Amino acid sequence: MARLIEELKKLPGVGTKSAQRYAFHILRSSDEDAAALADAVRGLKASLRLCSICNNVTDVDPCAYCASPSRNQRLVCVVEEPTNIEAVERTQMYQGVYHVLHGTLSPLHGVGPDQLRAKTLIARIERGEVDEVILATSPTLEGEATASWLAGAMRGFSVKITRIATGVPAGSDIEYADEVTMARAIDGRREI
Amino acid sequence: MARLIEELKKLPGVGTKSAQRYAFHILRSSDEDAAALADAVRGLKASLRLCSICNNVTDVDPCAYCASPSRNQRLVCVVEEPTNIEAVERTQMYQGVYHVLHGTLSPLHGVGPDQLRAKTLIARIERGEVDEVILATSPTLEGEATASWLAGAMRGFSVKITRIATGVPAGSDIEYADEVTMARAIDGRREI
Repeated sequence: MARLIEELKKLPGVGTKSAQRYAFHILRSSDEDAAALADAVRGLKASLRLCSICNNVTDVDPCAYCASPSRNQRLVCVVEEPTNIEAVERTQMYQGVYHVLHGTLSPLHGVGPDQLRAKTLIARIERGEVDEVILATSPTLEGEATASWLAGAMRGFSVKITRIATGVPAGSDIEYADEVTMARAIDGRREI
Repeated sequence: MARLIEELKKLPGVGTKSAQRYAFHILRSSDEDAAALADAVRGLKASLRLCSICNNVTDVDPCAYCASPSRNQRLVCVVEEPTNIEAVERTQMYQGVYHVLHGTLSPLHGVGPDQLRAKTLIARIERGEVDEVILATSPTLEGEATASWLAGAMRGFSVKITRIATGVPAGSDIEYADEVTMARAIDGRREI
């Protein structure tokens, strides 16, 4: 029991109280239900893997995006985490594929260029398989550092490198934009 | 007394209770203090006016921006309200001048093109006094409508028309960007 509670406490947002509640629930439930939960947990790790092309979490390799004939395989959007793909997909306007870095450069946390999963992307670019790389890391300190490191690593190959726009969010008043965002919005102005 | 309370209640956020408190305070204060307040209120309207060039609120005409020899008088940033100038100034990177519309197009509230103070700006463009107009209205429904109406009104003259960038705010995670902002951030991506 204590071992189960310890394991459950490792889940995000689960403290001792919640872990005890879950453990007692499992104790009271049928043998089948407990076995089903255990199998599902084990099965997840057994069936899910990273796409060998883009590092997205997937149950088939290559993933649905990389295998799709209706997607532009020569347009690659680089994101930090698999969950970021959802943020781009929600726009319903992106028709390219992805590349997941699984993190950002963070010297303080010991994450350097070698810890990022960028090698397969750079190999694709070297082979001339990509027309444009959109760097869609977040406009945070780490995200910007990662984007400029990656842009540097891709320089010299015949690939267009672009960065998503930083600016005032849609629907918000410029009155509430912080000065860095406002400066970027002016700097990144486009001719209309 | 009732008349003063009624007038004080017109101030933003001041209800009957606060207005009564203010009125009794004025009643108890010296004749000089009451006269000084009355003069200050009257003086504000007498001394403050709109800049005849850019419509900014000012005590001298033309305003400090329009009169400054160190500012680029041929680069004009169009904003909705005088307070928006502060948002741009905070960036400490803008060296042009301004034009204040005093509102946005809003058919529901009876604000059409004729109610916006755009005539002096268009006259300056007609006279060839402006190289670039930056449309810095907010990326809200009204702000966008105003920007595109204004862009249309300026078309045909030899002036560069630009729009500030809409995108993910600096320092924020793309995970929290709404789909419209994310779509605009991808659409507005720039080559690096």
